[in-house]
Amino acid sequence: MRTETKAYAAQSADTPLAPWNLQRREPKPHDVEIEILFCGVCHSDLHTARGEWAGTVYPCVPGHEIVGRVTRVGDNVKKYKAGDLAAVGCMVDSCRECDNCKDGLEQYCKEGMVGTYNGKQRDGSGNTYGGYSNKIVVHEDFVLRIFDKLPLEGVAPLLCAGITTYSPLKHWKVGKGDKVGVVGLGGLGHMGVKLAVSFGAEVTMLSHSANKEADAKRLGAHKFVLTSDEQQVKSLNNYFDFILDTVSATHDYNLYLNMLNTNGKMICVGAPPDPIQTPAFNLIFQRRSIAGSLIGGIPETQEMLDYCAEHNIVSDVEVINIKDINEAYERMIKGDVRYRFVIDMATL
Amino acid sequence: MRTETKAYAAQSADTPLAPWNLQRREPKPHDVEIEILFCGVCHSDLHTARGEWAGTVYPCVPGHEIVGRVTRVGDNVKKYKAGDLAAVGCMVDSCRECDNCKDGLEQYCKEGMVGTYNGKQRDGSGNTYGGYSNKIVVHEDFVLRIFDKLPLEGVAPLLCAGITTYSPLKHWKVGKGDKVGVVGLGGLGHMGVKLAVSFGAEVTMLSHSANKEADAKRLGAHKFVLTSDEQQVKSLNNYFDFILDTVSATHDYNLYLNMLNTNGKMICVGAPPDPIQTPAFNLIFQRRSIAGSLIGGIPETQEMLDYCAEHNIVSDVEVINIKDINEAYERMIKGDVRYRFVIDMATL
Repeated sequence: MRTETKAYAAQSADTPLAPWNLQRREPKPHDVEIEILFCGVCHSDLHTARGEWAGTVYPCVPGHEIVGRVTRVGDNVKKYKAGDLAAVGCMVDSCRECDNCKDGLEQYCKEGMVGTYNGKQRDGSGNTYGGYSNKIVVHEDFVLRIFDKLPLEGVAPLLCAGITTYSPLKHWKVGKGDKVGVVGLGGLGHMGVKLAVSFGAEVTMLSHSANKEADAKRLGAHKFVLTSDEQQVKSLNNYFDFILDTVSATHDYNLYLNMLNTNGKMICVGAPPDPIQTPAFNLIFQRRSIAGSLIGGIPETQEMLDYCAEHNIVSDVEVINIKDINEAYERMIKGDVRYRFVIDMATL
Repeated sequence: MRTETKAYAAQSADTPLAPWNLQRREPKPHDVEIEILFCGVCHSDLHTARGEWAGTVYPCVPGHEIVGRVTRVGDNVKKYKAGDLAAVGCMVDSCRECDNCKDGLEQYCKEGMVGTYNGKQRDGSGNTYGGYSNKIVVHEDFVLRIFDKLPLEGVAPLLCAGITTYSPLKHWKVGKGDKVGVVGLGGLGHMGVKLAVSFGAEVTMLSHSANKEADAKRLGAHKFVLTSDEQQVKSLNNYFDFILDTVSATHDYNLYLNMLNTNGKMICVGAPPDPIQTPAFNLIFQRRSIAGSLIGGIPETQEMLDYCAEHNIVSDVEVINIKDINEAYERMIKGDVRYRFVIDMATL
């Protein structure tokens, strides 16, 4: 028996998202069934729905910033019961046996994690469908605990935008005394600012939009530097210990690399269509690094959710009706959102 | 009073190196005067002599892998006396006051280190002239101690090729249990193999020359992989913890980045004319890093020389007569040297 589930799907790369019904599996012994209350809207949703990255399987139901309430659980589920709040992020499964899975780094699973949408179920049962739907069934090991302390619509984007910025800041031990630059004030960037500030770092927002200065300061940034202003850029030569680069449009990495102090690290969480380019000398002369980072593992995602609950950190969101999702995509492309759209699933 | 010094110099970018006389300063209170016995021949010498990097001042006397014997010292010199063996590497001065200088990272001096050749003396006395000469006068703080335990001609290249590979291996804590790939078997690469092996790592030589396999193994490499062999390359997918990339010709960084395991680091010590290029996804998917590293500071260079003396590590060299330096440059371009030319300065 399967559960009829309402959803919004793209039927092809060039058709808008529209209502579509799908079947969720009956909860297996370790499964948790969740009624979805809110789902954040991530740039990856748009890239995947529109086939801008290779490999989209249609129909495609995006959404991997999912918060909701448990409706049913399988017989062996110990961690959740009906009525609990629960969340699902970017993954719903992994091999669980490789070194990375054993280390709680399921996002780097050697067999590949199973994405919450457009992923391939490991049991051969087909493609995964994401959070633009009213229900989801997920193995308890990939379900996260959340609390009613914070507004749920603001919690939803923590599942991707939050962990994507939290994980590298933690991995590279960003904290008190560190000078951190955050490139780009969008869904990821605004979380990067909030989290880096909360860790005690001195945070500078690096943006090409002068009109974002007030917002950057409101979010907690200590400084704002307009990247089109040569004088300001020059003043940051060899300045930062870390730069968190959240931009996924093509941009000049050297502008930022030059701002790294000795041993400075630039961490890329956005993936532009064009490659990173830099002369080796730009790394050699101050022992600089460029690194990448992908979301976070399940234990770290839970740690982040607990941390955010404790420190009252949520995403700044604009709640939308699911029928407006296509318009939201257009506004997202223009950067016209402060700072994350979240779908109120009651509108489905 | 100044000391007449015999040397070999390039008078312009397109003239071969030829005999030239220069004046060395009289030792000041903290200066050490050294009679040069051997000087290694580094690729940088050729790039600078031929004006292939911006900023060569002519006449140019290259050479920054210098070993010799102290002839005179200034009145305040405590560390050296006439008759001692001594060495000079890539730097002869720095500001000594910035955070990096105070931390013994003079190579990253915020005002710029003073190169042993083609550097600008901080006291305004002009350009620096390197080790293709029979004498050099250097402040004692930039003189290194060496021992008569090892053949001096094999010690000379440690001053650049040795420290350039030792420093990143130490900085990134390469040791027992680590899988290390070394790209390129030349002056730097052969030292990288010897040092990484001595630190207890499992070392794989990555080379496009099949005929280097026997040599790589002789130097201590545990494995040899031909980078033109797709099957062999594929078998190294996600394999290494560290890759030390010593190549300064244009090459494909992604070939090697794909070989890095989760959290793997690729360290570039060669600077090709074309920029490093890689899609951000190649870093993001396994939290990989690319970093650069420049020689080493004075304390670390001394540590490396002591370490090499203790562990009987020297460079494999071909000793040449200084009149053959131009031919040596041509052979170096073709990779026809195993693995470092060293000038016997008695031939000057």
